[in-house]
Amino acid sequence: MGTSADSGASAAGSRLPIKVALAGASGYAGGEILRLLLGHPAYRDGSLVIGALTAGGNAGTTLGSHHPHLLPLADRVLGPTDIETLSGHDVVFLGLPHGNSAEIAEQLPESTVIIDCGADFRLTDADDWEKYYKSAHAGSWPYGLPELPGGRDKLVSATRIAVPGCYPTVSSLALAPAVAAGIVEPRVNIVAVSGTTGAGRAPKADLLGSEVMGSVRAYGVGGAHRHTPEIKQNLSAIAGADVTVSFTPVLAPMPRGILATCTAPTTATVDEIRAVYEKAYADEPFVHVLQEGQLPQTGAVVGSNVVQIAVTVDTDAGLLVAIAAIDNLTKGTAGGAVQSMNLALGLPETDGLSTVGVAP
Amino acid sequence: MGTSADSGASAAGSRLPIKVALAGASGYAGGEILRLLLGHPAYRDGSLVIGALTAGGNAGTTLGSHHPHLLPLADRVLGPTDIETLSGHDVVFLGLPHGNSAEIAEQLPESTVIIDCGADFRLTDADDWEKYYKSAHAGSWPYGLPELPGGRDKLVSATRIAVPGCYPTVSSLALAPAVAAGIVEPRVNIVAVSGTTGAGRAPKADLLGSEVMGSVRAYGVGGAHRHTPEIKQNLSAIAGADVTVSFTPVLAPMPRGILATCTAPTTATVDEIRAVYEKAYADEPFVHVLQEGQLPQTGAVVGSNVVQIAVTVDTDAGLLVAIAAIDNLTKGTAGGAVQSMNLALGLPETDGLSTVGVAP
Amino acid sequence: MGTSADSGASAAGSRLPIKVALAGASGYAGGEILRLLLGHPAYRDGSLVIGALTAGGNAGTTLGSHHPHLLPLADRVLGPTDIETLSGHDVVFLGLPHGNSAEIAEQLPESTVIIDCGADFRLTDADDWEKYYKSAHAGSWPYGLPELPGGRDKLVSATRIAVPGCYPTVSSLALAPAVAAGIVEPRVNIVAVSGTTGAGRAPKADLLGSEVMGSVRAYGVGGAHRHTPEIKQNLSAIAGADVTVSFTPVLAPMPRGILATCTAPTTATVDEIRAVYEKAYADEPFVHVLQEGQLPQTGAVVGSNVVQIAVTVDTDAGLLVAIAAIDNLTKGTAGGAVQSMNLALGLPETDGLSTVGVAP
Amino acid sequence: MGTSADSGASAAGSRLPIKVALAGASGYAGGEILRLLLGHPAYRDGSLVIGALTAGGNAGTTLGSHHPHLLPLADRVLGPTDIETLSGHDVVFLGLPHGNSAEIAEQLPESTVIIDCGADFRLTDADDWEKYYKSAHAGSWPYGLPELPGGRDKLVSATRIAVPGCYPTVSSLALAPAVAAGIVEPRVNIVAVSGTTGAGRAPKADLLGSEVMGSVRAYGVGGAHRHTPEIKQNLSAIAGADVTVSFTPVLAPMPRGILATCTAPTTATVDEIRAVYEKAYADEPFVHVLQEGQLPQTGAVVGSNVVQIAVTVDTDAGLLVAIAAIDNLTKGTAGGAVQSMNLALGLPETDGLSTVGVAP
Repeated sequence: MGTSADSGASAAGSRLPIKVALAGASGYAGGEILRLLLGHPAYRDGSLVIGALTAGGNAGTTLGSHHPHLLPLADRVLGPTDIETLSGHDVVFLGLPHGNSAEIAEQLPESTVIIDCGADFRLTDADDWEKYYKSAHAGSWPYGLPELPGGRDKLVSATRIAVPGCYPTVSSLALAPAVAAGIVEPRVNIVAVSGTTGAGRAPKADLLGSEVMGSVRAYGVGGAHRHTPEIKQNLSAIAGADVTVSFTPVLAPMPRGILATCTAPTTATVDEIRAVYEKAYADEPFVHVLQEGQLPQTGAVVGSNVVQIAVTVDTDAGLLVAIAAIDNLTKGTAGGAVQSMNLALGLPETDGLSTVGVAP
Repeated sequence: MGTSADSGASAAGSRLPIKVALAGASGYAGGEILRLLLGHPAYRDGSLVIGALTAGGNAGTTLGSHHPHLLPLADRVLGPTDIETLSGHDVVFLGLPHGNSAEIAEQLPESTVIIDCGADFRLTDADDWEKYYKSAHAGSWPYGLPELPGGRDKLVSATRIAVPGCYPTVSSLALAPAVAAGIVEPRVNIVAVSGTTGAGRAPKADLLGSEVMGSVRAYGVGGAHRHTPEIKQNLSAIAGADVTVSFTPVLAPMPRGILATCTAPTTATVDEIRAVYEKAYADEPFVHVLQEGQLPQTGAVVGSNVVQIAVTVDTDAGLLVAIAAIDNLTKGTAGGAVQSMNLALGLPETDGLSTVGVAP
Repeated sequence: MGTSADSGASAAGSRLPIKVALAGASGYAGGEILRLLLGHPAYRDGSLVIGALTAGGNAGTTLGSHHPHLLPLADRVLGPTDIETLSGHDVVFLGLPHGNSAEIAEQLPESTVIIDCGADFRLTDADDWEKYYKSAHAGSWPYGLPELPGGRDKLVSATRIAVPGCYPTVSSLALAPAVAAGIVEPRVNIVAVSGTTGAGRAPKADLLGSEVMGSVRAYGVGGAHRHTPEIKQNLSAIAGADVTVSFTPVLAPMPRGILATCTAPTTATVDEIRAVYEKAYADEPFVHVLQEGQLPQTGAVVGSNVVQIAVTVDTDAGLLVAIAAIDNLTKGTAGGAVQSMNLALGLPETDGLSTVGVAP
Repeated sequence: MGTSADSGASAAGSRLPIKVALAGASGYAGGEILRLLLGHPAYRDGSLVIGALTAGGNAGTTLGSHHPHLLPLADRVLGPTDIETLSGHDVVFLGLPHGNSAEIAEQLPESTVIIDCGADFRLTDADDWEKYYKSAHAGSWPYGLPELPGGRDKLVSATRIAVPGCYPTVSSLALAPAVAAGIVEPRVNIVAVSGTTGAGRAPKADLLGSEVMGSVRAYGVGGAHRHTPEIKQNLSAIAGADVTVSFTPVLAPMPRGILATCTAPTTATVDEIRAVYEKAYADEPFVHVLQEGQLPQTGAVVGSNVVQIAVTVDTDAGLLVAIAAIDNLTKGTAGGAVQSMNLALGLPETDGLSTVGVAP
């Protein structure tokens, strides 16, 4: 195979290309960030270059041995995740297990745009952090979900960004318009079915293909999942008051995708609710409010940055039913990260992000 | 291959073996009933024989062309689903599209045990039937879910039995003890993830493997699914008052299994709730209340008649969380049907039904 | 959702954009062609526009109802597949059941670039056609597999192109260098495992998700598959003599991908063989000969136009073993079609085609 | 849940029940052996009891934490895999990584029936063992594949049995009649597609659900797989001369099942070949030679001990094509083990083994 395709043309328009590093390159979040960057217009015209790729235990191996789908970078050797390797970049993506970001972040210059796909800087409440993560709170950074009310402003020119969790992304966007409009009571119930990449790439017996194929199972039941306080934080901020959140994650036999079924008590009509959602997301490039009669499916958003949302009312039960689908690796992690990078750097927000899924 | 294995029937203990017919033998419910009957002790000792197997459009074809896994019956030719063919049997299982059972039932003798896996005789309320099924109500039959309070008594010596829907089976059993004990408010929320066999075997583009693999999607949203009134009927009967039910089914990429996540407001403690469930199901051979820390997975119950139930309390949200798993084809359809047959005929209730799943 | 993303910018560089039509837009091949066109640089800069989209029985419905992943075109209404609708375009892709292309082709001007994803014009031998397709031979067109020896030249400026079948694409590329170099005997054995989209989108009971998940099965055994003569034609043309082909297709539970295991008698060493393959494909942008010790996996090429090939020698058996992976919908159909279009129109061959897969 | 179902053992017919131990109970082979024993008539009537269950690193945990589908044994605590724990049983199944069986076997009495599901005692040729397993050869035991010519005799009353590998089981049975009849040349080509349980339960990144779903890949290419010499040994013994074997295993996204596509040069007609196969397997309870036009599918044999075989001739290629399907965990491992136990103990050979699969 020759090297002409996807080479990310050498002749940059800019004298000083943006230099991007990625820590955690052998994981799923890291691989998806690289997939998106390889298709980013700035990479393709040479104004963005992919610098250091690092890993923990996988340092010294090639990227291709972990991500054979990323052919243009297959021969890149992963460096160690340390400050020497990550220094000298304009943007540093962190795809690390939680608890590792703060130490790196404080050693990098203030001007470096750090985009953390881990949980470390998502929660504003130290007690919540300590309760759910059993460690000291590192603080909080601007939250990388521009579609939330006021969310975009915090990201423009930001140099520290906490990318939301995958469940909070889909759940918050499914409920935000209703909560913001005050048309639901502040008690929400979320059951979200996820593909297995959300559980990461560390080998565990219960994530083996033999175990997950042909089976669904719940986990983190009863409010135990760490994304619960993050969803509560998002919705409460929008409501301006405490929102009660019941959240149950379910693991399904597919690699990618989350489908969240969200309910909340309402007395509004379906027309009122649809009007609220359509208005809230009218200008959002990645949020697609489905027409009446259509329902989301995760397969339609695989590889894309799209959030599909359907809303209706269960009149017998007196509930708003909002169902939303995302690709947990794209909009739920890496897509959100690249979207945030675009905003931070002043690039067009949608660059490198697609509204076209890979289906079936 | 010789014919010695699974041949059943050679040395019958009884002079008059029970003769069983099955209408709808080429469908999934029909195939699963036959799978269970082939392993039933009464079949194996010859006291139960498998008589007419019928189909609609598939009449004239062999059973093996539809169910190559049912080797001992592979060469059986399917007859037409008519009264001539189904007459002369002690037990007739009906695995037909709804709307077809009444006509057959009224032509068979009162003494014939008819076990209907369709919906026709499940609902007691004619208005509910007409609203959800858009046709005239045929009436209601004893309901084939012995684990419900008082449920077993109705089935002993019954000659007409309506097998519950798969979602109502798992949802009702997940919530019945709490509702019966009055420890939850009568407002329940159910999100149930199902495998694809629940959607039947009629070819539809949106059920193609290419469509369902790698994707989950909701359907029948907002109370639209026909199992909603059936769940409501069950829980309201237990409560002695109206129970509000919000029900959302989700289709997952696996052939078998349902995982139902059920919540209802409660002020009870987890210990109180566990005590209620453990007492309610202490003597039930097929309901397995999981120990604290365990959670259900559909893969563990494939091919078995077991219902796995985990209960906990989300104290922040003030909700009972009951999560239950079944095999929709076994306990959710054919297993429930055979269990009902056993009760109707006075056979041991667990005969032909396993507590051992086929996993992984 | 706004309309800014993926809009295919209006300000075209060219006064006369290339106008593309697609017949068979509701099928899998059609959907994949549209997915690729939406990401094509010529579409994005406005120099290529997507004109008529047509269907047979699905005419009158929206594209979004069939391909919810193609958001930018979701509201397009499908026209009928007739000459009026398809006229007036520079390029017409045909994604039709075989037997339908000739009638359309002969009514379109000679200058229209017609790219047929069906089988009609693939075989040069009328007897082969009649034996395998049981109908009159329509003729043969330049074959859209530029990586075959001499293959590219036939496509430059072509106005009629027959896109290869998916199995012939991967099998021919896996074996071509060895056959061309004369280092194998002309007897090849191919067992190719395919995802289900290769079987199309027409609803059939044996393609239901319930049937295909958890199961693999062979079909078209003993030389019966229609792709057998096409593989034989390709390899015999390269060899300049008859090549005997044994071909067995296997259906696997995944939507996309083909893995072909190909063997042929050889006395060459693995080093000699590797040298032949590396030289043959050195300049091919989409053929990736894997390093020693690496093996292809279909998951790595999903959505990409890449062919992964591993070659080794089974010295005990005296066989070359060449294993190759493609995405049957991309390189195996729609990617090959777009690559052919690029060559026919004089666009850069790799435009709109990626070497980056969507994984996992 | 009560304890009445599947309890077995209460009223033993025999004064001295057969006492069975299992080493490696937390693995897939071990779990499947227990699933079969729980349904075995001897267990159900109390004449066989399940004694010690042992594990390596999982000693001290409950069986239910590894195999939640084996409810009747869920509370059993796994002992250590040592001679103290395994002593005092009539039958000891070994489901251990290779290299561990010899040490245990030599410490158990000669009269103990030891059934080894590992590879240690399968190969008769020490050089083959050392080449493929890189360790000293432990010897060879009677081979647990009764359907091979002369195979059954070796197992009657045997006290040491080597259960075949899963690939050798299906491949040898697919080819044995043709090889025995001398109607094929002694050069066979096998491509076998397997589910993931064949790769075991030890957590590895490349066996994660995220990796295996949606992808097929080859491994052990070029004769490198350890089952190659075992297949060659079986076929050569039948032929009375060296048979050349090319074997390529492929991993498919499903938990269970192997489909083997086997070819060998022949000049026989399809009728001659069918006659040979039908005669060879006429009295075999578990080998099902499919009728003309039927093809095997792994889904039809899940959980059963059946081998489905289809034979045809590719006349253009001059090849016999034999395609066979098994469940790798049942007939390919645990079913073969139980069948061997039955023969060794003088129980009916088919006891506890089904010809009915769990499908779909």
